[in-house]
Amino acid sequence: MTDLIARLRAAVGDAHVLTEGDLAAYEQDWRKRMRGKALAVVRPASTQEVAAVVRACAEAGAPIVPQGGNTGMVVGSTPDASGREVVLSLKRMNQVRHIDPANMTVTADAGCVLQNLQEVTEAAGHLFPLSLAAEGSCTIGGNLATNAGGTQVLRYGNTRDLCLGLEVVTAQGEIWDGLSGLRKDNTGYDLRDLFIGSEGTLGVITGATMKLYPLPAATLTAWAAVPSLEAAVSLLGLAQQTLGASLTGFEVMGQFALSLVAKHYPQQRVPFLQETPFCVLLENADQESEAHARAQFERLLETALEQGLVTDAVVAENIAQARQLWHVRESIPLAQADEGLNIKHDISIPVSRIPQFCSETGALLTSHIPGVRLVNFGHLGDGNLHYNVQAPEGGDAAAFLSEREIEVNTLVYDQVQKFDGSISAEHGIGLLKAEKLPHHKSPVALGMMRAIKLALDPGNLLNPGRVLGSLR
Amino acid sequence: MTDLIARLRAAVGDAHVLTEGDLAAYEQDWRKRMRGKALAVVRPASTQEVAAVVRACAEAGAPIVPQGGNTGMVVGSTPDASGREVVLSLKRMNQVRHIDPANMTVTADAGCVLQNLQEVTEAAGHLFPLSLAAEGSCTIGGNLATNAGGTQVLRYGNTRDLCLGLEVVTAQGEIWDGLSGLRKDNTGYDLRDLFIGSEGTLGVITGATMKLYPLPAATLTAWAAVPSLEAAVSLLGLAQQTLGASLTGFEVMGQFALSLVAKHYPQQRVPFLQETPFCVLLENADQESEAHARAQFERLLETALEQGLVTDAVVAENIAQARQLWHVRESIPLAQADEGLNIKHDISIPVSRIPQFCSETGALLTSHIPGVRLVNFGHLGDGNLHYNVQAPEGGDAAAFLSEREIEVNTLVYDQVQKFDGSISAEHGIGLLKAEKLPHHKSPVALGMMRAIKLALDPGNLLNPGRVLGSLR
Repeated sequence: MTDLIARLRAAVGDAHVLTEGDLAAYEQDWRKRMRGKALAVVRPASTQEVAAVVRACAEAGAPIVPQGGNTGMVVGSTPDASGREVVLSLKRMNQVRHIDPANMTVTADAGCVLQNLQEVTEAAGHLFPLSLAAEGSCTIGGNLATNAGGTQVLRYGNTRDLCLGLEVVTAQGEIWDGLSGLRKDNTGYDLRDLFIGSEGTLGVITGATMKLYPLPAATLTAWAAVPSLEAAVSLLGLAQQTLGASLTGFEVMGQFALSLVAKHYPQQRVPFLQETPFCVLLENADQESEAHARAQFERLLETALEQGLVTDAVVAENIAQARQLWHVRESIPLAQADEGLNIKHDISIPVSRIPQFCSETGALLTSHIPGVRLVNFGHLGDGNLHYNVQAPEGGDAAAFLSEREIEVNTLVYDQVQKFDGSISAEHGIGLLKAEKLPHHKSPVALGMMRAIKLALDPGNLLNPGRVLGSLR
Repeated sequence: MTDLIARLRAAVGDAHVLTEGDLAAYEQDWRKRMRGKALAVVRPASTQEVAAVVRACAEAGAPIVPQGGNTGMVVGSTPDASGREVVLSLKRMNQVRHIDPANMTVTADAGCVLQNLQEVTEAAGHLFPLSLAAEGSCTIGGNLATNAGGTQVLRYGNTRDLCLGLEVVTAQGEIWDGLSGLRKDNTGYDLRDLFIGSEGTLGVITGATMKLYPLPAATLTAWAAVPSLEAAVSLLGLAQQTLGASLTGFEVMGQFALSLVAKHYPQQRVPFLQETPFCVLLENADQESEAHARAQFERLLETALEQGLVTDAVVAENIAQARQLWHVRESIPLAQADEGLNIKHDISIPVSRIPQFCSETGALLTSHIPGVRLVNFGHLGDGNLHYNVQAPEGGDAAAFLSEREIEVNTLVYDQVQKFDGSISAEHGIGLLKAEKLPHHKSPVALGMMRAIKLALDPGNLLNPGRVLGSLR
């Protein structure tokens, strides 16, 4: 391995091959589920350097773990404990390369931090709509590798839907320049979408061309009390009919999830908390004017009140109020952590079946674990729930997690499968869910995935074991 | 081969294995570029029957040509002249299986005719926005296999963007049930997008779950004279800023293309024909009301007139007028055929570079072929031009085609490559462009495509030679 280290140093410079000191930022995953040990952390500064690193590792037979902001939720970007894996950090490749205003595209390095990309494009008069909790740390390359979701998917789609072209270093250390700014290109297989969401197992994304959108003239936020999940689903349909593509957010939050925010952050005001089993946060981004957005929102909410889909509602009067409402939504993950560790699920279900899924699954969980509490919230417009299971009131959260996690996961994921859902809506598989995947994915699909992996990475050097587990 | 025919008959019934009589509808491509000879035309009625057909062909080593409506433009769905290939027609699998209103999805058989899918979903109160000239004959499976484009791509994307899940019979005759209605599912590689656009070379699409949208409250059409392509590009940006996602169509048409409509269909009125080098057709689909749509359109066009982006404009007063305007646009392909065969190109260029591409390429063509005439029209909002080259006035069109096609194609495609464009924006590669692909696609991309083809179809039985040419 000394030879490999020497080659890596020659490729990227001594200062950018880290083998000593505190490497926790690279070796530990975001949720602190696992801590690995890297052979080295390599920080190339260009696509050519990435290619040189991959070639050196391929020749030495050293596995490569590509890493962006290392904010993933499923242990997909940290090394295992073997000390054999090379972490390939893209963080030094952090430039916005080019904005094409008339084509409405931006091309950026993979290591560009999402918030930076948002800010640079906004300063140029455009919207880059990808938005998620980790945006201050995550990178666009990581967003692409995991096909990140977030809060604007309802209108703009997942990261996949925002991408027009990729630059990728293959497992052989070749560079594929697929940085297309084209909206139509039917010249062969869709390699772009194959790399997107493959979690670093098929190639190393080094750059991307992404779609931009016009900045809205006004963005308004509303908060509505709904009597049931059925009503929330009907409200979603009404909102889509009324607002069309201006409906950019539709988040649902259960009463218990909101009560944790009120409990742990008493300075926050949670509207309608005592009165209703669920609240919905709606966002309306209008191309015309604030007055038009407000009139449209009022038209929607009046109809919803008449139809009994909403029992009460408030539209934020200004940006500060809108921020407060979003802040309540965004505080749920922190509030549940303050309440104690819980068993997390990032699932999706066809929107139409969410009410029945929740009532059945909630009843099953309660019958298995009397007093269990459900932190149920998520992007209802995308069918995506963060369906987290908290210990009974006053219970020992750590003991609950260690004793009950497998049982609860099995119960929830079996229900997800029954309702034609997904065990990972937006977080991916990584190492954390790789063992579970074969139980919930068709063997035909898994067979094709393995065949593709071996076709593009026959040495199984790129992020081995993640997503697909062992290939033997 | 007698054994194979017997097995096929056992699989789908004698009446649905055609080997005699007039098979032109299956053996000749839409544009009548080539006529092949099938070993047999097999018409299965179910996914299980498709799988049985594929298994029988695989065991006999007989190549399979999947076929939907057989309306493709690049000879991708007809057999070659060898008499060895089995045409697998999906036309008997023509049912809309299920509409899920709250999930805003429809699931249909691959052989469902596009127009039928449009009508059934509209009757249920939803919009299925895929729309293209062949919609009365083409099938949703064919649309998916070729990632069809059409006139609504600006707002709703290509067929790829409308699909949530697929059912596919693999080259091994296994059935992959990927008929997901999920908007988020990050559980492994994106097999769906790999099959979409692969033109029947990786698997046989037998069913799909597609997205639905709310029906707009009003759809208005405008026709604008623009002084240049630069102005058209600026108008596009202004229209996107003003109308947002309500802008559902933005078609550009050159004066010569329009003059052919006026010449061959004198009963049609072509607004502003004599006054302007280009016209633009805009469509505005509004969720609110016709009055709102009209006010928004007027706001846009007034600003455009003030900025000199538009020299004159008309907004259709009613549906009949709107149909007339669209009819002019849709008559261009027919009018150019009446004028005589021409050399067709379905190209895309980054929107920002289209004006320069057209001026440079037009000058090059004129210098090579004095008097040459350009039928230039297309979906400017998608960067997609149908850039067709017509013989000089009074020239012999057939002789022009046979003598000049290679020279003109080379010139145009080299220019496309220089401007980072695509030689096939929405029509695909098929057999017609398979030889050209290696000259215009990165060898790294081609290498990955071949590796994927061999991984999923190691016997090279599915539509061999199409897209990738010979794999040897």
